Amino acid sequence: MSLELYYWDGLQGRGEFVRLALEEAGADYVEVARGEPSEGLGTGAMMAVMKSRDEPYPPFAPPFLKDGDLVIAQTANILFYLGPRLNLAPSVESLRYVANGLQLTIADVVTEAHDTHHPLAASLYYEDQKDAAKTRAHDFIDNRIPKFMKYFERVLKQNPAGDTFMVGDSLTYVDLSMFQLIDGLLYAFPRALKRFGEQYPRLAALHAAVMERPNIAAYLQSERRIEHNEACIFRRYPELDKAAA
Amino acid sequence: MSLELYYWDGLQGRGEFVRLALEEAGADYVEVARGEPSEGLGTGAMMAVMKSRDEPYPPFAPPFLKDGDLVIAQTANILFYLGPRLNLAPSVESLRYVANGLQLTIADVVTEAHDTHHPLAASLYYEDQKDAAKTRAHDFIDNRIPKFMKYFERVLKQNPAGDTFMVGDSLTYVDLSMFQLIDGLLYAFPRALKRFGEQYPRLAALHAAVMERPNIAAYLQSERRIEHNEACIFRRYPELDKAAA
Repeated sequence: MSLELYYWDGLQGRGEFVRLALEEAGADYVEVARGEPSEGLGTGAMMAVMKSRDEPYPPFAPPFLKDGDLVIAQTANILFYLGPRLNLAPSVESLRYVANGLQLTIADVVTEAHDTHHPLAASLYYEDQKDAAKTRAHDFIDNRIPKFMKYFERVLKQNPAGDTFMVGDSLTYVDLSMFQLIDGLLYAFPRALKRFGEQYPRLAALHAAVMERPNIAAYLQSERRIEHNEACIFRRYPELDKAAA
Repeated sequence: MSLELYYWDGLQGRGEFVRLALEEAGADYVEVARGEPSEGLGTGAMMAVMKSRDEPYPPFAPPFLKDGDLVIAQTANILFYLGPRLNLAPSVESLRYVANGLQLTIADVVTEAHDTHHPLAASLYYEDQKDAAKTRAHDFIDNRIPKFMKYFERVLKQNPAGDTFMVGDSLTYVDLSMFQLIDGLLYAFPRALKRFGEQYPRLAALHAAVMERPNIAAYLQSERRIEHNEACIFRRYPELDKAAA
């Protein structure tokens, strides 16, 4: 039976981190919210799972994954579950916790990237919190991006198996997520990241290497890869971008 | 060998979610940052691990746990690792992913609770972002707390094993973390949560039940339990609190 991925249609969002793992592995999966209501799919089918009053373990929000009867919520959790099944987790069990720790740190950056355009409330329009967004975005550029990226660069550098992968000596879902995080930041903050390749050579190499993997390259060219856009986490608002201090 | 918990001294913070699991289980653990430098402990010993240039898998931030050579970062990840070892995880393996999904949703609320007093930048003083904090805190009270708490109440209600525990039919670390989340919110936003017991009777019962467990009760009375305070995630700033809309 196919895996069912549930995520909002029309944007990459947090679903993209899961999608990249499924695509790299060539997994058989259904993108539920993007399907046809006449086939029992679509956003309504997704909302039905979330709002179900008899689902034993309902998810709070997308993305979530259904594998048979099991409903798995939260991006990092989905990847922790899928990793070994897709051959995208470290084979050494203890390193799976290292991978999960890194994935959760990536998730923290994703949340902070979202909050650059919505620092006051997700329920308010961006236009009604632009000044606050500018303050938060500039702090993100000056303080947070460098702090996180120096850390991730150091993780590559200190990896005892070499600086090609985030954990261990082969590709894991963490590398795919790291690619996506960098890609989103490059899209949203081109001025801030102008010197990214110089500053973080190992991360830049990882980003390039993931993009060239055959399955990922094919995916990125496909219609399944929705373009970065301003309904998403990573938004290109020129007024929030600036050269890093 | 003892487990080593690394977290900032002087506050409950995210370390408290791990601490409650260790205390409930009566585990043998060392609170590294609170120890004596003369014994190789203290905040300096914690910083040394974080800043180490030869640690194979350095953590980004506390809390992190050392179990022998393995360094495990991120609260939910630490609990996912410790859960089975402390007999605080579901015995059914698939339910461990349900537990982790819930734990990560609790972690999302914790981050949002933090951002009520620091919506613009962690690097700025609270006093320099008070107006923004008020907007964010009131949105948190009116929209986010109800959304999350209705969800968690529904998780209890829909649990096929009964509404006493968040997952399955016995205590897990998720229940302990749920206690701590509620406890922090009750401390920070007493006006907003005035009707908590009426609105969320199952969550209120869980909070009371955890507090009465012998090991937790003893811990809460001990000097190891640092009081809620305004250096922490959950801060009682009366100007941010209000009755829910």
